[in-house]
Amino acid sequence: MPEFVSAESDPSEGLKAAFRRHASGVAVITLLTAEGDPVGFTATSVTSLGSNPPLVSFNVARGSSTWPHLLQAKHVAIHTLGATNLALAQRMAADHTQRFVPNDWQRGPHELPVFTSATSALICKVREIHNVENNAVIIVDVEQTLLGAEDDALLYHQRHYLKPGESLN
Amino acid sequence: MPEFVSAESDPSEGLKAAFRRHASGVAVITLLTAEGDPVGFTATSVTSLGSNPPLVSFNVARGSSTWPHLLQAKHVAIHTLGATNLALAQRMAADHTQRFVPNDWQRGPHELPVFTSATSALICKVREIHNVENNAVIIVDVEQTLLGAEDDALLYHQRHYLKPGESLN
Repeated sequence: MPEFVSAESDPSEGLKAAFRRHASGVAVITLLTAEGDPVGFTATSVTSLGSNPPLVSFNVARGSSTWPHLLQAKHVAIHTLGATNLALAQRMAADHTQRFVPNDWQRGPHELPVFTSATSALICKVREIHNVENNAVIIVDVEQTLLGAEDDALLYHQRHYLKPGESLN
Repeated sequence: MPEFVSAESDPSEGLKAAFRRHASGVAVITLLTAEGDPVGFTATSVTSLGSNPPLVSFNVARGSSTWPHLLQAKHVAIHTLGATNLALAQRMAADHTQRFVPNDWQRGPHELPVFTSATSALICKVREIHNVENNAVIIVDVEQTLLGAEDDALLYHQRHYLKPGESLN
């Protein structure tokens, strides 16, 4: 029987090596500060947690610029992104003071900042936050979904954004 | 400014519509029953929860065949999959009595069932389980990583398995 090619005994290096072999869908999460200003970030951890009732989970670093605002937010908008949203994904992962460009976003339900260029925006209520070391798992209830134009899904893999490729089945 | 194309006010249908536009990496999670037998399932919810310390989260339906075994498991193996693992991904998502074929798996650390054909296997210790409605979020500590052969990452999107495509940046 074949063996594994190698073992990485340092667990942090091992996790990084494994996730370089794993691809993710790309989302943008937005919310409001206590003052009502838009904040948000690009996330590759958004995943469905069941559809009845409709729940979504995502992970966030507690050292991130958005973390203190998440702690007081009642609602968030989770945007699924398409290939045409590449620049948005890059901007929402870069300098946090430059993420919201005038005329690129608008106010949606609960005054949340929404990007109508996204393939969808899930309007969600924050339900649970579980702190785990320097990170947190956020669980939200989906209240409503806004659908944008159809597009290829945007993926992240090996530090690059990419489109889906050849179907295997 | 452009508007969204449509709104889905039923939250369950809205979640499904949004996630049809989102792609995921594919993993297989394995563990042992109390009797030491191999069980496991295909998961599209595996995501990193920080690398220092190395943590991973994944979601599971509490009605799944593996759920009662997860509740008593101390360790799990999380395998990232490549395109050559298509049949494994399909089998671990089908009839739970047919998932482990003789000579296709072997015993790894903690006697966990491992697939050496996967691109990696993260050997993990179960840390936290958070029940949320009919589902659960599982958080694990990564202890060790076994690396398989390099391969295209396996993706799941719109009910199909696929390879990554064109890089956009």
